[in-house]
Amino acid sequence: MTLRVGVIGTGMIGQDHIRRLTEVLSGVEVVGVTDIDQARAAAAAPGGAEVFANPSALISSSNVQAVVICSWGPAHEEQLLAAIAAGKPVFCEKPLVTSEAAALRVMEAEAAHGRRLVQVGFMRRFDADYRRLKAVIDGGRLGAPLMFHSVHRNASVPGGLYTSDMPLNDTLVHDADISRWLLSDEVAGVEVRVPRRSSRGGELRDPVFVLLHMASGALVDVEISVNIAYGYDIRGEVSCETGVAALPNRPATVISDANGIRQAIPEDWRERFIEAYDQEFREWILAASHGTATGPSTWDGYAATLVADAALRAAFSNSFEAVKMIAKPGLYGPPAALAAE
Amino acid sequence: MTLRVGVIGTGMIGQDHIRRLTEVLSGVEVVGVTDIDQARAAAAAPGGAEVFANPSALISSSNVQAVVICSWGPAHEEQLLAAIAAGKPVFCEKPLVTSEAAALRVMEAEAAHGRRLVQVGFMRRFDADYRRLKAVIDGGRLGAPLMFHSVHRNASVPGGLYTSDMPLNDTLVHDADISRWLLSDEVAGVEVRVPRRSSRGGELRDPVFVLLHMASGALVDVEISVNIAYGYDIRGEVSCETGVAALPNRPATVISDANGIRQAIPEDWRERFIEAYDQEFREWILAASHGTATGPSTWDGYAATLVADAALRAAFSNSFEAVKMIAKPGLYGPPAALAAE
Amino acid sequence: MTLRVGVIGTGMIGQDHIRRLTEVLSGVEVVGVTDIDQARAAAAAPGGAEVFANPSALISSSNVQAVVICSWGPAHEEQLLAAIAAGKPVFCEKPLVTSEAAALRVMEAEAAHGRRLVQVGFMRRFDADYRRLKAVIDGGRLGAPLMFHSVHRNASVPGGLYTSDMPLNDTLVHDADISRWLLSDEVAGVEVRVPRRSSRGGELRDPVFVLLHMASGALVDVEISVNIAYGYDIRGEVSCETGVAALPNRPATVISDANGIRQAIPEDWRERFIEAYDQEFREWILAASHGTATGPSTWDGYAATLVADAALRAAFSNSFEAVKMIAKPGLYGPPAALAAE
Amino acid sequence: MTLRVGVIGTGMIGQDHIRRLTEVLSGVEVVGVTDIDQARAAAAAPGGAEVFANPSALISSSNVQAVVICSWGPAHEEQLLAAIAAGKPVFCEKPLVTSEAAALRVMEAEAAHGRRLVQVGFMRRFDADYRRLKAVIDGGRLGAPLMFHSVHRNASVPGGLYTSDMPLNDTLVHDADISRWLLSDEVAGVEVRVPRRSSRGGELRDPVFVLLHMASGALVDVEISVNIAYGYDIRGEVSCETGVAALPNRPATVISDANGIRQAIPEDWRERFIEAYDQEFREWILAASHGTATGPSTWDGYAATLVADAALRAAFSNSFEAVKMIAKPGLYGPPAALAAE
Repeated sequence: MTLRVGVIGTGMIGQDHIRRLTEVLSGVEVVGVTDIDQARAAAAAPGGAEVFANPSALISSSNVQAVVICSWGPAHEEQLLAAIAAGKPVFCEKPLVTSEAAALRVMEAEAAHGRRLVQVGFMRRFDADYRRLKAVIDGGRLGAPLMFHSVHRNASVPGGLYTSDMPLNDTLVHDADISRWLLSDEVAGVEVRVPRRSSRGGELRDPVFVLLHMASGALVDVEISVNIAYGYDIRGEVSCETGVAALPNRPATVISDANGIRQAIPEDWRERFIEAYDQEFREWILAASHGTATGPSTWDGYAATLVADAALRAAFSNSFEAVKMIAKPGLYGPPAALAAE
Repeated sequence: MTLRVGVIGTGMIGQDHIRRLTEVLSGVEVVGVTDIDQARAAAAAPGGAEVFANPSALISSSNVQAVVICSWGPAHEEQLLAAIAAGKPVFCEKPLVTSEAAALRVMEAEAAHGRRLVQVGFMRRFDADYRRLKAVIDGGRLGAPLMFHSVHRNASVPGGLYTSDMPLNDTLVHDADISRWLLSDEVAGVEVRVPRRSSRGGELRDPVFVLLHMASGALVDVEISVNIAYGYDIRGEVSCETGVAALPNRPATVISDANGIRQAIPEDWRERFIEAYDQEFREWILAASHGTATGPSTWDGYAATLVADAALRAAFSNSFEAVKMIAKPGLYGPPAALAAE
Repeated sequence: MTLRVGVIGTGMIGQDHIRRLTEVLSGVEVVGVTDIDQARAAAAAPGGAEVFANPSALISSSNVQAVVICSWGPAHEEQLLAAIAAGKPVFCEKPLVTSEAAALRVMEAEAAHGRRLVQVGFMRRFDADYRRLKAVIDGGRLGAPLMFHSVHRNASVPGGLYTSDMPLNDTLVHDADISRWLLSDEVAGVEVRVPRRSSRGGELRDPVFVLLHMASGALVDVEISVNIAYGYDIRGEVSCETGVAALPNRPATVISDANGIRQAIPEDWRERFIEAYDQEFREWILAASHGTATGPSTWDGYAATLVADAALRAAFSNSFEAVKMIAKPGLYGPPAALAAE
Repeated sequence: MTLRVGVIGTGMIGQDHIRRLTEVLSGVEVVGVTDIDQARAAAAAPGGAEVFANPSALISSSNVQAVVICSWGPAHEEQLLAAIAAGKPVFCEKPLVTSEAAALRVMEAEAAHGRRLVQVGFMRRFDADYRRLKAVIDGGRLGAPLMFHSVHRNASVPGGLYTSDMPLNDTLVHDADISRWLLSDEVAGVEVRVPRRSSRGGELRDPVFVLLHMASGALVDVEISVNIAYGYDIRGEVSCETGVAALPNRPATVISDANGIRQAIPEDWRERFIEAYDQEFREWILAASHGTATGPSTWDGYAATLVADAALRAAFSNSFEAVKMIAKPGLYGPPAALAAE
């Protein structure tokens, strides 16, 4: 059985997902696309796919069984609500929505539907390295996790386009989501510190250092460097009561030459997370084929929105900014286990 | 477009490939199976697939576009010749055949057909670590490859079933094939040395140490340990004129605990090469959909047969045993580049 | 020429230094010892060494050319002042003194003498790993240092004896000193955060997380875990503008066995820093033979005192606590280079 | 108590040992030197040391308690015999002597003296990495050692001066000695294979591949590459029955930059083994102060001579060349334990 998918938004990430759904993965077919730029949609449409005039038409088409949203953030709420209204599983790229109120509206609609339909694109949760790391933590042999050191380094960002709020509302969300997931915890508050600025980014606030205070008391520190030149380097280490677990070097040939004994570092997120994106969709296809969703949920998108908001406030206040969430709807499982209990 | 495949042999490896073709990969469908044990074939057949009475019926079925051979080695020649006669692409698990004469007959048939139809299951060539290693060697920055140290360690082998010839005709073929491929070279001769025996295998000749003398003069040394208890550990290091390139540790969480700072080692070949098997079939499906084959060829299966034969002779003679190949048919590309030229 | 040394304090660390000066290092002789426990002093005295009745007698003895202070912290000020008054080089174990006022008095006395006489026992500065790390940073190829992640893990601390202030005034001083030295910077302020508590230490505040705000704007984060069971694990990574430099694993046999591929971790600080202690004294002997001191100075001991005081205040206030130093006396070299200049 | 030492031969290595004995180590004093070049001897003599007219005068001087031989190999026998006749401990740089007959004569003289006086300069045995490796093997947790892979890479050798016999009689001896010591075994025979030649050394036979067949049956394979450009890289891995133990990377800052994540490799043997040389003399001084020797003995020098001879024969014959030793004199301890027993 093949899942018939419609894709909203055919920019860079939309095109990449179309390629993935068409060439890499099984059990799925892209039967429709749409974009505000109709020509771009037509160019991106695989053979046999219909180009819809707008998201609404795509979502309501009886030929479309599930929806992939790759449009820009401000458009997500309306599209998500339409998909939920149509009872169709929907994969939504980050950010889920762009305000707390919008997140609550989507959550309410999904809860009213009574079953998860939305999956948010936090691909790190599908990365094999992170999954093995979580398995070690969850295994409990090292005791409770007390601290998590998360390092997020990017070789470069486009000058002018990448502004000083983006490390906090665009980049940090990955570290925040993976922290919540790795530690089975929620973020209770955020602090932001701004170290000496890198001369490579002009006036850009870079690097940025963030503390996430988790509900259990675990402390997460995040180094965000977005212009560090040498590569895309994602690191993470969890300090537990009787041991430590960390992400390994990426697999790469060990070369001994005039530069020492060494392994290459990924150039960018595409290289680093390509298998995670594949796996993310593999699991979504399976869930959507059963009329539901898996992995990161509306709840997780809501949490990410709150953390990003708090981080922006914290960068301004230089103080602790609390993250206050509503009670977790039962649809999204039990409250995060507090390891202290 | 979906490739319709028939699978001959539904033992352990056949079942695993059926799962792969059915659940993991796209662009392919298993439409027929057969096995000497009809009940086992019926049990392994995915929904909608026909259970054929014998390989001949499967191969000649107009519904089968391409064939996967997972039967035992002595049956391969007849099945390969039938597939070639039918002009159908065929994936054949190791060994290609069990004698030099049989390999020559299959090669002759394929050459007469005029296009590659056969792909042999040397999955290491599809492993990402080996591919990166080859890219470094081929890049030439380290100069010509002069030596290759290949380590092949297996946690355990079934007592009684695994006999002293098997390190040479079953295990060594992987190291021999990967050496030929990594170095773009041929094996010109083989020596075998038998170190002090491990007490874990009773009378089993284990470990075994093999030297492959390559046509270019490059020297390959192979450590084969099949009962080393601690895991399935495949290592490889190429010494070149100005540097060295080696396979890395496998990706695994870096744990610091009472056992030190450490990474887990794969338990067995399934864990180690699971992605390589997937990739092997991904590329085969693409090639077979175009009516041909890619990767390891009949020529490579022929070479493996000759090396295994020479290794068995060398273990007996304790001397250098030459590997004498026929001139390489043009179908299989140019002769291996001799780096000395 | 041999330096004749007197040792004040013959407890555990004093005995270890006597062993080092007697058995390991050249160019030095222990000619006198003293301790509040005369019997312990007598037992620790190497053959031929005089047991003095008190520190004053030892310091003023014409046979003693240089002094090593291993007494408890509150006694240091008087002994340091006596040694300076006598114009004798003096090695002083941590802490230099136990109050800011005392540090200022010692500094004033030394400045009046006009030449450095005091060396403080921050042995990390003599560790080969840290020295190589500093050489990389100072080399400038990675650009300015912006962040330093310092990890200080101890397998266990004696229950009851190790109290909740000690991670800050006993343990943190090492990270603070090495941060100042690695980054050629001063600490301008301190913040302390207390993560979820380890269940292994009862009421002990452990782990502790500290931020050191350096004068240049560089940000240092310190993880202090004093009961982490698995070993004594000192880590450090400096994030610069175009790259990162980190301490390596300690040299240890790479073992592949049922626990994975692994390297042992040091058990305690003695194992970790034994060569650093030797080198520290090697360089001190050389300097003292020329009537002066090298390495960590009274200024550095003063800075450590201020940082520990600020950290204790910060743990109480949960706020930023400034470190306010006097202008650096010329005796101690130029002010720390601000990398931004 | 200070050991008064005379040094014979003040070339590069002699000067380095004089520096070591004078500036680095304690308990020792260089009281005499001699060299065929008297001016060079005078220049190398530390303050207060006597310059002797010849080795004989130095050895017989009542002021010289122990002797260090750094002259060229052909002169060693006479000097060793003189030192033994004088009953003085003697440290002798490699090679012990240059023929089997000479080794037997020295051994006979030492045996007649009744106590070990001679220590041979195989410094690897004092290297911390090798010592930890041996401790792991001897600990027995990995079972018996079955294979040892020893890699000996040198960045470059002086063109013209380094001839094709030198990898076997100058370089291999280190691998042979360390194999005997690590495995507590003897070499029973040698095979040599010559891989494709590196273009960097002209006609020089490089690399060379050697098999050492140990008495226990353990098999040692040695890669010798003397012109590999990238550094001085010494590697070793022992395969045992249930696990593997290997030398680690050398301690070096872990740098992440445009060249990847990497650690520097030593430039030459001085950098690699500097601590081993210090430790070698530290232990010699202690033993010589008690009128005897420790570590590598005349027996080990004899073994090295036999292995080098066999390797040169094997390079010519392309066959197995046996190493036939006399029964081990009791002076040198029990015969190497055969692990199989």
